[in-house]
Amino acid sequence: MMEEYRKRVETALASYADSASAAPILKESMRYGLLNGGKRIRPCLLLCCAQMLGGTVNEALPFACALEMIHSYSLIHDDLPAMDNDDMRRGQPSTHKAFGEANGILAGDGLLTYAALLLALQPRYDAAKQMILSCALDMVSGQSYDLNDSERSESMLNLLHRKKTGALFCAALSAGAVIAGREDLVESFSDLGYTIGLLFQITDDLLDSEKDLAEQKLTYVTYYGRERSLAFAKEAEAKALSILAPYQNEAADTLRAVIAALTNRTE
Amino acid sequence: MMEEYRKRVETALASYADSASAAPILKESMRYGLLNGGKRIRPCLLLCCAQMLGGTVNEALPFACALEMIHSYSLIHDDLPAMDNDDMRRGQPSTHKAFGEANGILAGDGLLTYAALLLALQPRYDAAKQMILSCALDMVSGQSYDLNDSERSESMLNLLHRKKTGALFCAALSAGAVIAGREDLVESFSDLGYTIGLLFQITDDLLDSEKDLAEQKLTYVTYYGRERSLAFAKEAEAKALSILAPYQNEAADTLRAVIAALTNRTE
Repeated sequence: MMEEYRKRVETALASYADSASAAPILKESMRYGLLNGGKRIRPCLLLCCAQMLGGTVNEALPFACALEMIHSYSLIHDDLPAMDNDDMRRGQPSTHKAFGEANGILAGDGLLTYAALLLALQPRYDAAKQMILSCALDMVSGQSYDLNDSERSESMLNLLHRKKTGALFCAALSAGAVIAGREDLVESFSDLGYTIGLLFQITDDLLDSEKDLAEQKLTYVTYYGRERSLAFAKEAEAKALSILAPYQNEAADTLRAVIAALTNRTE
Repeated sequence: MMEEYRKRVETALASYADSASAAPILKESMRYGLLNGGKRIRPCLLLCCAQMLGGTVNEALPFACALEMIHSYSLIHDDLPAMDNDDMRRGQPSTHKAFGEANGILAGDGLLTYAALLLALQPRYDAAKQMILSCALDMVSGQSYDLNDSERSESMLNLLHRKKTGALFCAALSAGAVIAGREDLVESFSDLGYTIGLLFQITDDLLDSEKDLAEQKLTYVTYYGRERSLAFAKEAEAKALSILAPYQNEAADTLRAVIAALTNRTE
């Protein structure tokens, strides 16, 4: 079912990229940065959550795509020379490598603006728009902490995680709840989003631990070591499953399968 | 009256900058880029237009501020080394000079996101939100044309002008009309926005003509010469005044005074 969501997202993103009203090179670079083989985990979580709670994929899809555009813009800007200076992204030249630095900046600006426009064009679910954009602002804060704060403490690690990675997962799950008409669940599904984000982050850190240790990066694994990080991942898994326990339908099972896959992921 | 609008905008922007939920350095750099002594012409035009057509300044103010945040983010990103590489902005170090390049990128991203969030938080006037964000995307296209197209033609000059400068003036006037409940006027007030933007651009080009000639920049003055540019400015003034002719109130007079001041500006 996750694969079906992914296909829906991929097709919709390609269609949005094609229909964007933008200068030729801007359009091409936005398309390049957006359609580069990402796993689409955030938008798929949004769709899955909306469906699990009784919403429809059709209504949720533009919100999911806006969220993925925001994720994509952040990767494009992160890769810039002044930021992480990454020449490659998913085995391809990063956007600024393929189009030049100025066009990389503009591609990110364009995708963020397009995401905001896409949200503004939706006739309903203002609270979902607000959640997504508020989380997108938190994500910029996360980048700022990462860039400017060298403090190596538990509180900084948690803050970094919540803002940098957690925010967009929170956006996915809480927007999904809103679109399903369940604003009463926004708080617990925000929490679910942060929890899945934490799980994602820790297992990501576990996979990258040798590189991160060499670069003295502050991550769960470099701060707590592998064993405690694995324990935190298990804890996050258990918490996420307990929030999901009341739900018994195909989408809920899909969400549980995603959580299991994240816990045990090897790539 | 324009000065009153400017003060309202300035106070509101400072208050939004203070209440933004953002990491300390991100917040400081967003504030620095936003509150740097700009003339606030775009947001004041929005307020003036809304009031002229029967809307209220209070309702229009958040939209005006979002528009100015979008203008500010674009200046911050324009000044970056990979773009225009300007060290100074309004007599002060540009944002990336004051905070470093990575923080400059994030300050722009933060202001654009905050503008989108501010729009999403407004309970009404979806068409105004859409106009502003659609024009903001056009503005990114304008940057892209400016950066990538070296063609020196009348059509490129017009395209550049409409997208780079005209778009946000169009956003100001058309959003003003929507907020006044006059969606029927959006088309003619978009046109008014582009016309005032053109006037602004030509008189700006006239003031910068020596520098632009030295840098072989494509502007109205370097393309058409001073005399024809002055004639175009007069034509734009006449067109703007004719669109405004039916309106007889204090705000309309203010708008006419702004147009006269733009036509005759010396700085």
